[in-house]
Amino acid sequence: MSGYVSDAVIRRLPAYYRHLRELEEKGVVQISSQELGEKMRLTPSQIRQDISSFGGVGRQGYGYDIKELKEHIRQLMGINREHRMVIIGAGRVGQAIANHIGFRNEGFITVGMFDIYPGKNLGGDISAYSVDELEERLPDLEASIAVLAVPAEAAQEMLDRVYRLGVRAFWNFAPADLTYPRDAVVVSVHLIDSLFTLGYRMTQPDS
Amino acid sequence: MSGYVSDAVIRRLPAYYRHLRELEEKGVVQISSQELGEKMRLTPSQIRQDISSFGGVGRQGYGYDIKELKEHIRQLMGINREHRMVIIGAGRVGQAIANHIGFRNEGFITVGMFDIYPGKNLGGDISAYSVDELEERLPDLEASIAVLAVPAEAAQEMLDRVYRLGVRAFWNFAPADLTYPRDAVVVSVHLIDSLFTLGYRMTQPDS
Repeated sequence: MSGYVSDAVIRRLPAYYRHLRELEEKGVVQISSQELGEKMRLTPSQIRQDISSFGGVGRQGYGYDIKELKEHIRQLMGINREHRMVIIGAGRVGQAIANHIGFRNEGFITVGMFDIYPGKNLGGDISAYSVDELEERLPDLEASIAVLAVPAEAAQEMLDRVYRLGVRAFWNFAPADLTYPRDAVVVSVHLIDSLFTLGYRMTQPDS
Repeated sequence: MSGYVSDAVIRRLPAYYRHLRELEEKGVVQISSQELGEKMRLTPSQIRQDISSFGGVGRQGYGYDIKELKEHIRQLMGINREHRMVIIGAGRVGQAIANHIGFRNEGFITVGMFDIYPGKNLGGDISAYSVDELEERLPDLEASIAVLAVPAEAAQEMLDRVYRLGVRAFWNFAPADLTYPRDAVVVSVHLIDSLFTLGYRMTQPDS
């Protein structure tokens, strides 16, 4: 890490990765900050500032080496290794995540599911254990990420229980604001918030 | 609308709404900017600035009337009326959205689905039409929102076709950056970006 990376840049990292991968698939080898800026809808100087803040290197008159920059971001985001995920909540959201080929292709593998209604048929290889068996079964799964796909009122309890079993990273889909110890990381996807944002933009077309 | 509302405030509006609704359900009637700030993890002065920017009114020594403020935000976000949604792509993500009770409770109703494999059983009331019938069937559904739950490579074409049929609001789950006319609104949920962010925070625990 070369220096301080702002939250805004961290939020843009995945988009950098996505664009670079697309360019690589098209056979493009290098790109200027101008061209990358057009794709990312940022100014060339913002691009240069972003990339230099997370330790990427460009060359005068050449721009960025796409493969090199992509691999650098891959390492930063930990996509260069396998992540084992357990899914808490085997409802439709949990099932969608468990069976998402895109996640699997990037090394995020679902290794187990838990639900209050165990054994739900997921149309895949994984059937859900009962949450009653969480303490007994979760350690064997060696998961590093827990996906919280449970109702809001159950999310905090499940986070606490899974944390006590040693998992430190949580991908939260419950519409709840969770509290957690400092050594845990929680990234939330609030789908309803996103839908409300769309509702807002529909009523305020100039915003 | 009282004045200029920043993007950051618009992104926070749904969280305001969520907290106010929870407070109302608990029977709380009023709240100070101090208390609301603790919930939102913002300073009291940020809270006052946010709320005044979107036209909410507090009273000295009383704070905010929870019901009044919640209703104001509801109107801003267009949750005070029914939104008819069509879902393009009846895979697991599309199904999860079609059957999400939380969305339905807030007035976002799925009225139809389209897929290249029509007739998929969704475990609900809605079966998918063939996308070949999009032009014929979509107008009758009177949808105001289209959910794009298709692979990245199909998203732009589907947006264009649905736009030509008169829909102007798109909730996009495809990992693609879409282009669209100025009178359209597009809000994207890039699930893989969110997962990468989690991967990043796992490798950089101090960030």
